[in-house]
Amino acid sequence: MPVPDAPVTGAPVPVSEPPVPGPSRPSQLDPAVAARLRRTADGLVAAVVRDHDSGEVLMVAWMDDEALHRTLTTGRATYWSRSRQEYWVKGATSGHHQYVRSVALDCDGDALLVTVQQVGAACHTGHRTCFFEELPVTGADAP
Amino acid sequence: MPVPDAPVTGAPVPVSEPPVPGPSRPSQLDPAVAARLRRTADGLVAAVVRDHDSGEVLMVAWMDDEALHRTLTTGRATYWSRSRQEYWVKGATSGHHQYVRSVALDCDGDALLVTVQQVGAACHTGHRTCFFEELPVTGADAP
Repeated sequence: MPVPDAPVTGAPVPVSEPPVPGPSRPSQLDPAVAARLRRTADGLVAAVVRDHDSGEVLMVAWMDDEALHRTLTTGRATYWSRSRQEYWVKGATSGHHQYVRSVALDCDGDALLVTVQQVGAACHTGHRTCFFEELPVTGADAP
Repeated sequence: MPVPDAPVTGAPVPVSEPPVPGPSRPSQLDPAVAARLRRTADGLVAAVVRDHDSGEVLMVAWMDDEALHRTLTTGRATYWSRSRQEYWVKGATSGHHQYVRSVALDCDGDALLVTVQQVGAACHTGHRTCFFEELPVTGADAP
């Protein structure tokens, strides 16, 4: 039987944060690092990939615990494909390798900044970066 | 987010793409832009925020259609808070405003690159960027 909704009037109902999802798949990731991750419902954190030389933001992909473990321990950027539900090593077939220079975790554990030496194009379209389509900003609030 | 490289091992398994979730809340976002978004199950895209002057990656937050609409039309970075389930304009209470200089959509519509003039610290901890914690990279594969 479902818990009935709280009454519309009366004392405020305390709101609790939803539980942080654990890893979706087995992983050898250092437990101290794993404990810091705040994953999406499907066990992932966003990985922002930046070019080591130019500082350019190249792409965003997803990592689960094991993809992060492989990235840290092999030095090759490894992601989780949401559509294919499998790991992929960037460049394994395209030759557009990403050699990892550093990885930083953000303050609340749900995003990573991966700095790489990018070989060739990061984007499958052949563009250097995946962010090649500008959207119109019509409100230009000034500082 | 780029299309992953082909799997390294195993026979290819045909995978059907899950349906793309629509907007979670009503929005005035330009339908042509909305049609390009590939949202998470909870109707969000990742927004990578970059400093206009230094190029530094400052933070990652989330936008739904309406947060993107407000960002584009007001010139002030506006996000969707997953924990609070509400919109927030960066700097509204902290004073650490983000004046939007440009917004780019990535090749498959699930991430945005927002370039801003950042006032003060982007991170609520007082750090300039949220990515201040380095993780150890033990595998140093060389190009």
